[in-house]
Amino acid sequence: MDIDLNADLGEGLGPWRMGDDEALLGIVSSANVACGFHAGDPLIMDRTVRTALRHGVDVGAHVGFPDLVGFGRRQMQMDPAELSACVLYQLAALSGMARAAGHRLTHMSFHGALGNMAAADPALAGPLVRTVADFDPSLTISSSASRAIEEAAADCGLRVRTTFLADRACDEEGLLIPRKMPDAVIHEPARVLARVRQLLEEGTVTSYGGRKIPMRVHSILVHGDTPGAVALARGVRALVEAHGRVVPISRQAA
Amino acid sequence: MDIDLNADLGEGLGPWRMGDDEALLGIVSSANVACGFHAGDPLIMDRTVRTALRHGVDVGAHVGFPDLVGFGRRQMQMDPAELSACVLYQLAALSGMARAAGHRLTHMSFHGALGNMAAADPALAGPLVRTVADFDPSLTISSSASRAIEEAAADCGLRVRTTFLADRACDEEGLLIPRKMPDAVIHEPARVLARVRQLLEEGTVTSYGGRKIPMRVHSILVHGDTPGAVALARGVRALVEAHGRVVPISRQAA
Amino acid sequence: MDIDLNADLGEGLGPWRMGDDEALLGIVSSANVACGFHAGDPLIMDRTVRTALRHGVDVGAHVGFPDLVGFGRRQMQMDPAELSACVLYQLAALSGMARAAGHRLTHMSFHGALGNMAAADPALAGPLVRTVADFDPSLTISSSASRAIEEAAADCGLRVRTTFLADRACDEEGLLIPRKMPDAVIHEPARVLARVRQLLEEGTVTSYGGRKIPMRVHSILVHGDTPGAVALARGVRALVEAHGRVVPISRQAA
Amino acid sequence: MDIDLNADLGEGLGPWRMGDDEALLGIVSSANVACGFHAGDPLIMDRTVRTALRHGVDVGAHVGFPDLVGFGRRQMQMDPAELSACVLYQLAALSGMARAAGHRLTHMSFHGALGNMAAADPALAGPLVRTVADFDPSLTISSSASRAIEEAAADCGLRVRTTFLADRACDEEGLLIPRKMPDAVIHEPARVLARVRQLLEEGTVTSYGGRKIPMRVHSILVHGDTPGAVALARGVRALVEAHGRVVPISRQAA
Repeated sequence: MDIDLNADLGEGLGPWRMGDDEALLGIVSSANVACGFHAGDPLIMDRTVRTALRHGVDVGAHVGFPDLVGFGRRQMQMDPAELSACVLYQLAALSGMARAAGHRLTHMSFHGALGNMAAADPALAGPLVRTVADFDPSLTISSSASRAIEEAAADCGLRVRTTFLADRACDEEGLLIPRKMPDAVIHEPARVLARVRQLLEEGTVTSYGGRKIPMRVHSILVHGDTPGAVALARGVRALVEAHGRVVPISRQAA
Repeated sequence: MDIDLNADLGEGLGPWRMGDDEALLGIVSSANVACGFHAGDPLIMDRTVRTALRHGVDVGAHVGFPDLVGFGRRQMQMDPAELSACVLYQLAALSGMARAAGHRLTHMSFHGALGNMAAADPALAGPLVRTVADFDPSLTISSSASRAIEEAAADCGLRVRTTFLADRACDEEGLLIPRKMPDAVIHEPARVLARVRQLLEEGTVTSYGGRKIPMRVHSILVHGDTPGAVALARGVRALVEAHGRVVPISRQAA
Repeated sequence: MDIDLNADLGEGLGPWRMGDDEALLGIVSSANVACGFHAGDPLIMDRTVRTALRHGVDVGAHVGFPDLVGFGRRQMQMDPAELSACVLYQLAALSGMARAAGHRLTHMSFHGALGNMAAADPALAGPLVRTVADFDPSLTISSSASRAIEEAAADCGLRVRTTFLADRACDEEGLLIPRKMPDAVIHEPARVLARVRQLLEEGTVTSYGGRKIPMRVHSILVHGDTPGAVALARGVRALVEAHGRVVPISRQAA
Repeated sequence: MDIDLNADLGEGLGPWRMGDDEALLGIVSSANVACGFHAGDPLIMDRTVRTALRHGVDVGAHVGFPDLVGFGRRQMQMDPAELSACVLYQLAALSGMARAAGHRLTHMSFHGALGNMAAADPALAGPLVRTVADFDPSLTISSSASRAIEEAAADCGLRVRTTFLADRACDEEGLLIPRKMPDAVIHEPARVLARVRQLLEEGTVTSYGGRKIPMRVHSILVHGDTPGAVALARGVRALVEAHGRVVPISRQAA
C-alpha cells in the first residue's frame, strides 16, 4: 500500500509564521503551498518550494479565497468567473515559481471555505476544476472525499486523489464537518492516530454520527500549525510505514 | 523601420477602471499588463489577455511594487531577494494566465517607482533582470533608456528593447525625469507628436535640459489613462505608419 | 416636507476615482463616506470630509465588508464579533478624521452586501446596531426600509431614518432586490424621477412585483457613479424642492 | 524615579500571533497598539484594548506604514499629506475603539521605518507631529531619543516622552542603529539588563560606537516577540522597581 503524506505549508505572511515547515518537510511526501491569497507571500512561497525540492517533496498549489485576515476560512460569494480567475492566478503563480526553482507542480487542492464550498456544490466544483484542467491537465486534484469534485474531475479527465484529514470529523458522505461544530477538529493525538490506524487496517472511517463508512484514500493530511504537530506527523508516518510505504501521489501507480 | 507600439493596460482594480483598454488594444501592437501588485486583479488580467489575443496584440508582464493605493509609484525599500520573489510571482501569474488563454508572454517591463529605481541602479537591476532570465530566457525586457538594465540583460543573455515614452521628459542619459518635477509629464498632444516625429525622422530626443541626444528605439509607449489618450495613440500610430510599420517586438528582426 | 438628499461618496481608491464627488457635494445635503474597507483611503476620506464641510454637507460613515476588489458587494460570512469590530473601526476612523477637520459625524449606513444582509437578518442587525450605539448614541442610522434595522435601533435608543434608493427596485417589505436580478437597478433617468415624484406625492413606491406600498422616508439616495448621475441628482433635487425643502437629517425635526 | 514600562502589542493579524500579549499586559504599564496598517486587525485591536483596560494598562496608538507583509519596516516614499492622512486614520481608529471600550488613548508612537524616518528628518517629523496635535493635543508622543520629534512637538505644544529601547543600539545622538546593521539588535538578556541598569543608575547609555552618552528617559520599551521576552520583561520590571516605581506616562508628574 502506497500512501502519500501531505501537509499545508508556507502558511506564514511577512513576519508571521505558522507551523514548523522545515520539520514537516522532513516527514511528508507532498506539500500544499499557500499562494498569497489566504496565506503566503512571494518570498515564503519561493523558500517553501526550494526547501521542498531539497527534501525531495512534491509541491502542489493550495488555492483559497482572497482573504488574508480570515485565512480563507470565511465563505465569500463570488461569481464563478471571478473565482476561476483567482484559482488560475494562484496556480500560475506557484507553478511558475516552482519551475523557476527547478521544481514542478504536481497537484493542487482547495483551501478552507473554498474547499468546503467546492466539495459540497457541483455548480462551483465544475468551473473550478475546469480551470485547473485548462491550466495544466497533468495536475492531480487532492481533495477530501467529495462526489462533486470527483465528478467534475472525471468530466475534465483530471486525476483526483482522496486525502484523509486525520484530525477532522466527516459526515457519512465523507464531507468535512464545519470547523465551528463541537468536536469537528480532533485535538487528541491518540484519537488522530487511532483514526489513521483504522483507515489503514480496515479502509474505514467513523463518521461524526458514529457510523463506520468505507473510505479509499491515497493520501493522508497532517497539520503543522498546532502544538505537538511535528510529533503527531511522525506518528502518522510511522503508522503508514508499518502498513505500507510513504509515496507521493505523483509516484503512485495510476 | 519596424516600431512596436505599446501601452500599459489592465490597470483597473475591482470596480475601478483606468483608461480605455478596449480602444487601445485596437491601436497598439503590444500590451504591458498589470499583474495585481500595483494594479489589476485576476479577472481583469484574464480579460485583458483574452482581448489582446483577439486583437493579435502581444502581452507582457508589467511588474511593480506591492502597493495598490500608491499605484506602484512610491519607492519602497525592499531587499533584493524579497523584490526578486515579487517579480517572479508576477511574471509567473501572468505568464500562466496567458498560456491558459492560448496566448503567450513575450516581454516584461518594470512599472513606476520600481522601473525608475531599476533603471538607475545596477545593484537593483542585476538581481531583478537575473530573475527574469531564470524564469524565461526567451522574454524581452522592454525599458526606457537605461544602461543599468542593458548591462544586466547583456550579462544574462536577455534581449532588451528600448521604449520611448513619448510623453515623459528624460535627462541626457535617457533616464526619466521624476514625475513630480515640473513639466516631467508632457500633456499637450501636439508636443508629444512632435517628439515622436523627431525621433522617427532624426533618431533623437530633446532632453529635459534642452539638448538633442541620439536614441535608438524599437518601441514607443502610449498612455491610455488621460483624456484624449485614444486620439493621441491613433496620432502616434499614424506617424509610425508614415515612417515605417507597426510591428510588435516579438516579430521584429533581431 | 423636509427631505435629506444623500449620496455615497469618497468611493475612489489611490489613483482610481468613482463618480464626480465635487459636483455631487454641491447638490446633496448628506454624504455617506467610504471608510477604507470596501473603498476609500485615508487621503480620499480626509479630502471628502473637508470638501463636505466647505459645502455645508453632513458626513456619515458608509461601513462595508473588508473587500476592496469586490467593492463590498460580495457576501462574506464573518462572526458577529469580528464584523462588529470592523464596523467599530470604520466608524472610529471616519469620526476622528471628521473631528480633526472641524466637522462631525452625524450618521452611518451599511454598504452593499453588508447592508443587504443586515437589513434582512435580525441576528446580524442586532449586534451591528448595538456597536453603533456603543460608539456614539447620537448617530442616526440611515437605511433602506428594513424592519430588522428599525427594531435593533429601537432596542438601543438609536434614531433610524429610512432612505429611498430611487434607482433600486424593492420587494413588498421595502427590502432591496439583489443587484444581479434583472431590472433590480433602474437605469433610465425618467423612471427614477417618476419614482421620486410618486414617493413625494403619494408616499408610495411600486414594488418589484408591481404593488404600490406605502413608504415613509426622510431621505433620498442619489448615486454618483453612473453617466448622467450629476444631471439626475439635480433633477431629484428639483423635485424635492418643488414639494418641500432639502434638509439634512441632522436638522430635520425629530 | 517614576518609569513607564511599555511594549508594542496587538501585533498579530487574523490567524497569526506575535508575542505573548496577555503575559506582557501583566508586566507593563503602557501598551503601544498596532492599528491595522503594519499589523493588527479590528478584532485584535478591540481585544488588546479591552485586555489592557482590565490590567489597568494605558493604551497608545502605534502608527506605521501601510505595509503588512513588510511589517512597516520597509521605508516608503509617501507625500507628507498622504502620510499625515494615514497617521490620522490610525489615531482615529484606535482612539475611537478605546473610547467605545471604556478606555482612552493616552499616547502614540511611530513604528518601524516610519519611526526611524521621522526621528531623523525634521521635514517629516513636522507635519506628522502636527497631525497628532490636531487630532488630540492631550496625547503624549512616545519616541526614542530624537531632536526632530522633540522640536516638532515643542512647536505644537505636545508632550514628548523619551523611551529607551533596551535591546536596540543607538548612535551618539540617541538615534537607533538600523535593524540590519550587525549587533543593532541586542539579543542576550544579560546585556539588555545591563543596559537598563546603567541607564537607571547613571542616566547614560553606551552608544554603538562605544561612548557613554547621557539619556534622560521616562519610559523603557520591552519587546514581546522573541523567545524569553516575557522573562526579560519581568527582569526589566524588577530592575525598575529596585530603583523607583513603574508608573505609566499619563500618571507621571509633568
